[in-house]
Amino acid sequence: MTGKKPTLAVVGATGAVGTVMLDLLSTREDVWGEIRLIASPRSAGRKLACRGEQLEVVALSEEAFEGIDVAMFDVPDEVSAQWAPIAAAKGAVAVDNSGAFRMDPQVPLVVPEVNASAARNRPKGIIANPNCTTLSMIVVLGALHQRYGLASVVAASYQAASGAGQPGIDTLRAQMEKVSGTNLGTHPGDLRGVVGDLGPFPAPLALNVVPWAGSLKEDGWSSEELKIRNESRKILGLPNLRVSATCVRVPVVTTHSVSVHASFEDEVTVAGAHEILRAAPGVVVLDDPAAGEFPTPADVVGTDPTWVGRIRRTLDDPKSLELFVCGDNLRKGAALNTAQIAEVVAAELSGKS
Amino acid sequence: MTGKKPTLAVVGATGAVGTVMLDLLSTREDVWGEIRLIASPRSAGRKLACRGEQLEVVALSEEAFEGIDVAMFDVPDEVSAQWAPIAAAKGAVAVDNSGAFRMDPQVPLVVPEVNASAARNRPKGIIANPNCTTLSMIVVLGALHQRYGLASVVAASYQAASGAGQPGIDTLRAQMEKVSGTNLGTHPGDLRGVVGDLGPFPAPLALNVVPWAGSLKEDGWSSEELKIRNESRKILGLPNLRVSATCVRVPVVTTHSVSVHASFEDEVTVAGAHEILRAAPGVVVLDDPAAGEFPTPADVVGTDPTWVGRIRRTLDDPKSLELFVCGDNLRKGAALNTAQIAEVVAAELSGKS
Repeated sequence: MTGKKPTLAVVGATGAVGTVMLDLLSTREDVWGEIRLIASPRSAGRKLACRGEQLEVVALSEEAFEGIDVAMFDVPDEVSAQWAPIAAAKGAVAVDNSGAFRMDPQVPLVVPEVNASAARNRPKGIIANPNCTTLSMIVVLGALHQRYGLASVVAASYQAASGAGQPGIDTLRAQMEKVSGTNLGTHPGDLRGVVGDLGPFPAPLALNVVPWAGSLKEDGWSSEELKIRNESRKILGLPNLRVSATCVRVPVVTTHSVSVHASFEDEVTVAGAHEILRAAPGVVVLDDPAAGEFPTPADVVGTDPTWVGRIRRTLDDPKSLELFVCGDNLRKGAALNTAQIAEVVAAELSGKS
Repeated sequence: MTGKKPTLAVVGATGAVGTVMLDLLSTREDVWGEIRLIASPRSAGRKLACRGEQLEVVALSEEAFEGIDVAMFDVPDEVSAQWAPIAAAKGAVAVDNSGAFRMDPQVPLVVPEVNASAARNRPKGIIANPNCTTLSMIVVLGALHQRYGLASVVAASYQAASGAGQPGIDTLRAQMEKVSGTNLGTHPGDLRGVVGDLGPFPAPLALNVVPWAGSLKEDGWSSEELKIRNESRKILGLPNLRVSATCVRVPVVTTHSVSVHASFEDEVTVAGAHEILRAAPGVVVLDDPAAGEFPTPADVVGTDPTWVGRIRRTLDDPKSLELFVCGDNLRKGAALNTAQIAEVVAAELSGKS
């Protein structure tokens, strides 16, 4: 098909990630022929703006994938589990942002800055996009690993409400309204009585932090914590990498942050880490505390790169670094990385890679 | 002076910590004779409730310490540095909650549950109270250390606005008002334009997290991060303990949380850690994620203990534990621990210990 632009389907076009995806498709280099928007039957017929056109959403069905070369999925796990193989059977390459296929040994898990070449080996016709929290730090860790050899990671996350989708955003906004102007924060129980609906979170999120994300897995770990571990190992090709994560939700709308303690095979220096990260694609170093410069979600939201600051060498260990990373969980953490993977496939299909 | 109740001065009675102190003194076992409230001259003459009485605040002066046995200081470092030695010279035992004396080798740094006996050796007549973030985790670490032998700590904090005193609380509340009802959190720069005054923080705190607390020290570390390291070593009597902390401010009014990765000399088990921590004074274990039970600031604020949950054994290391701890930074993190130290001294002065 060299010479003809590949066709793209966006499945889940009306969700929180899908909305960002349409924005990205309208602003990134246009490598696509037809773009078809697909969503649940109740959204069919809606018109959404993409590349300056109004596109009508079509209902998810086998026929919807006719003539599609690449199908991006931003839908719940069970929807992807059912429909990504159908899209693949119809001849599309499915790029899936759910958790359904990430740990499938026959499905590559791809972050283009780290392991783009893995996208070519896709026996099921499916490529998986990592979890948003993994994506918040993996580009930084991948760059440092190439030079220093990554040995272990201890991560504590500061995850935004939109990691739980539009219901997460809506819940935080509603709770912010309810606590605003109240004198909360000095007596126990106040918040639970005031915030109302907890939405997708197990505790109040406004004026609070909640050390839980995802579902309960064995030995007290959350699914989100195990995803960071297992996905980092797979993306970096380090099946025995030591990874311990604690995932905590914070009252931020969008942009995940992670405090990272990373240990390496070789000795590290802060100057060396700065040099590596300044040269790394998709990374911005913002690390001058004397000038008040370090990344925060408010500064990072809406941007594409992974931002890193607070880079320190561990005082007791010349082989370890402390880092604070921020990434927009709806962009690099979801829509952007999916779009980047799809573009890698588009280049391959167009014979340009 | 056996038989006579010792007299107490509360220096800084009108501040955020002082206010909690008066509440504590009104509800804890009453070991004190006269209680004298001391503050800056501009607060002199104000009346504050304590033990059911209205007490008139007197201005800080040398004479204000006449007849005082124990003087608690909740004032800025420079005020403590000047006045705690004066109180001591007048014969009082100064219990200081500033950073002025914590690392002075002639001043004990005391957490009664961990090292109460250190309070007796006070050549300068001064006892220091640890930093609030250290206090959020040290009772838990102290209890585990006794059984397993602590080797290293990696900590990431989620610190409340009130750790920056009343200006911190006021700033967060004002920012919450301004962002409430806005559609923030999707584009960069929005928050900085809307929140207005940053108060004591270097970036917006509402709907954000800020990886900075304190002042800049060598090699990119913040003063708060080095306090956690140095104070933990001193309190636990482990001068070579490996400690790496990253301190992050979150939009919570009161209660600090810390995600802790702790490594020990011996192998650990989750059941063993539960047993140790359930028996530890001043600790509450809240650790049943299947039932949605883990500590959050909203549940902990206004209470005395250190709360701990999310206890997991590190998957790659049978000698390490992951923990999430929460402590009210104005109570155990400040006023309560100061009151507890003062009570240890009171018992000693009364010949009861």
